[in-house]
Amino acid sequence: MNSNRRHVVLAETLAAIRPADPLALAEARAYQDRLTKPQGSLGVLEEVAVRLAGAAGASPPPTPAPAALAIFAADHGVHARGVSPWPQEVTVQMVANFLAGGAVANAFAAQAGVPVTVVDVGVAADLPDAPGLVKRKIGYGTADLSRGPAMTADQAVRALEAGITVARDLVAAGARCLITGDMGIANTTASAALISAFAGRDAAEVTGRGTGVDDETYARKVDVVREALRTNGLHSASGEPVPPDGGEALRALAAVGGFEHAAIAGFVLGGAAARVPVILDGVIAGAAALVAAALDPAAPDHCVAGHRSSEPGHAVALTHLGLRPLVDLELRLGEGSGGLLAYPIVCAAVRVMHDVATFDSAGVTEKPV
Amino acid sequence: MNSNRRHVVLAETLAAIRPADPLALAEARAYQDRLTKPQGSLGVLEEVAVRLAGAAGASPPPTPAPAALAIFAADHGVHARGVSPWPQEVTVQMVANFLAGGAVANAFAAQAGVPVTVVDVGVAADLPDAPGLVKRKIGYGTADLSRGPAMTADQAVRALEAGITVARDLVAAGARCLITGDMGIANTTASAALISAFAGRDAAEVTGRGTGVDDETYARKVDVVREALRTNGLHSASGEPVPPDGGEALRALAAVGGFEHAAIAGFVLGGAAARVPVILDGVIAGAAALVAAALDPAAPDHCVAGHRSSEPGHAVALTHLGLRPLVDLELRLGEGSGGLLAYPIVCAAVRVMHDVATFDSAGVTEKPV
Repeated sequence: MNSNRRHVVLAETLAAIRPADPLALAEARAYQDRLTKPQGSLGVLEEVAVRLAGAAGASPPPTPAPAALAIFAADHGVHARGVSPWPQEVTVQMVANFLAGGAVANAFAAQAGVPVTVVDVGVAADLPDAPGLVKRKIGYGTADLSRGPAMTADQAVRALEAGITVARDLVAAGARCLITGDMGIANTTASAALISAFAGRDAAEVTGRGTGVDDETYARKVDVVREALRTNGLHSASGEPVPPDGGEALRALAAVGGFEHAAIAGFVLGGAAARVPVILDGVIAGAAALVAAALDPAAPDHCVAGHRSSEPGHAVALTHLGLRPLVDLELRLGEGSGGLLAYPIVCAAVRVMHDVATFDSAGVTEKPV
Repeated sequence: MNSNRRHVVLAETLAAIRPADPLALAEARAYQDRLTKPQGSLGVLEEVAVRLAGAAGASPPPTPAPAALAIFAADHGVHARGVSPWPQEVTVQMVANFLAGGAVANAFAAQAGVPVTVVDVGVAADLPDAPGLVKRKIGYGTADLSRGPAMTADQAVRALEAGITVARDLVAAGARCLITGDMGIANTTASAALISAFAGRDAAEVTGRGTGVDDETYARKVDVVREALRTNGLHSASGEPVPPDGGEALRALAAVGGFEHAAIAGFVLGGAAARVPVILDGVIAGAAALVAAALDPAAPDHCVAGHRSSEPGHAVALTHLGLRPLVDLELRLGEGSGGLLAYPIVCAAVRVMHDVATFDSAGVTEKPV
């Protein structure tokens, strides 16, 4: 595949994305009020069902089943800066754990009835073939984002297109809901850098303790994120966000992103283009969705925020995206764990639109106005 | 069944309840830290799994499947005071809707794979026999709690024992998790009165808008709740809570509760006695759980708070019970809706303890201490 052909996949995908359909949104809102429940009594679930109707362009929205989880795995050159207490080889060890069915994501996926696909977009080791593993390696980990661009522009587009292709393949195989997952030691550092750049916020506001770092490591992590933005000329001291402009977004992604961030951004765009809803997991997905939104402002219309992690940058990303998380239980694991917990809630929200009787059909007296 | 025999069921149940097992709690906590995830990274889900281990007296705790939802339905004499905009006949209409499978609870139950049982403990009409309907009617609605006791002491015990019996029967039929549900027009008024009494809080702090009341109705509802407590001599101006003492708790329940509150309190006690976890739904269940906790302080050890409704009294009740809700999505429906949304999350929390590999077993490098 040459560089031009790859850009075609991205361009085709962006051209296919439509914003939420206002007619379907209005129809879904009106229908919610005819169902045998007090108006508004399902709170956020009513918003979710309406949102999915707008995304699909149909009310009621299609049942979001079956779903598919894709865990995008990659390594990060910035690991060398000591931003994580975990050795880098844990990425490849956890990929093996996912493929053996022994990780939390597997347990949650089994609970939700969702098959797991692991996508190697940049693990720093060669992986043996295995059922459930898709090989789309862009490199053996990114370069150190604090010393220069994490990846080349060509790598960024290839990683985006890898994510698009995974989304397309899963939809072609029948998936009607996509759930993002990630694995990559040090990827909360790249997430913080992306959120800092795309939301225009200082490193200290968006950097967290990831899977658990001490005070000294945390301070270093904040410095590294700030340095990454400065080195890559990404935002001014006044904290200007990356402008919502494709070219600059691609440059920022290449500068401070990870291969899994780029792939998840592509996965979001691929889902949006196919009008299949995408449930975002935690802070890595939130950072990636900022990239997707900068490439196409309609992309978030097709997303549901699965949960809010305890990483501070995640709340910033969700606010920037205009998304409200469904689950808020202090998870900070990644892997798709929060997205998988949210999936049955999304299904329940849509099922109400399909199954519940109206006041008329059930012969239930409506509340007098 | 004579009155003595009935008190035997309650006494037997209370005698069978055990507090959380400290050894199982400690084992579960230690095991969580050996699983292939950063310590504490599953946040509240780790607490849920540990809690269920303590309740069961076993680590890992048993899989909470299959579950069973029981929707306790009853009417309320206080409806005559104009505390709800909905006509009373909506209770019986909604019972028909549950039995026909057309309500939100049915949609959520289908999504979660949970069978629905409807228990008539006090609907103000005779109901035809139907599959899924259990008849345990204590009366045709309670008396008006603002004018005197809502029920007699004998009725309160009979309603408690109806709930115990439903829990026992569901457990005998194989249920390994019980989920509370309720239906009863005006039952948020009785809930507010119970929470005011059992938590020792003023009516204004614990009374909400239920399924949707206007300002005038809301003000009347607060007055009615305050009047109910005063009329029934339930708490002093200084806001003393009902003392955790069986006799006084029964008197307070009879004074301002509903038949479904009493039955749900019994359902909680029945689950606790059988060491089967009980997922509490919203404010009606929260009020009922306060009664259960007053009858046996170990009862909440066996409960999980499914969600936090938008009724202000619910947060007060949960705080008083020491429970943290799993879902917080501005639901205000009842029927078991919030408990059903929480159920897959509870299952996921327990499944982690059964399925996830340890660092040793998976060959994943642990974070250096």
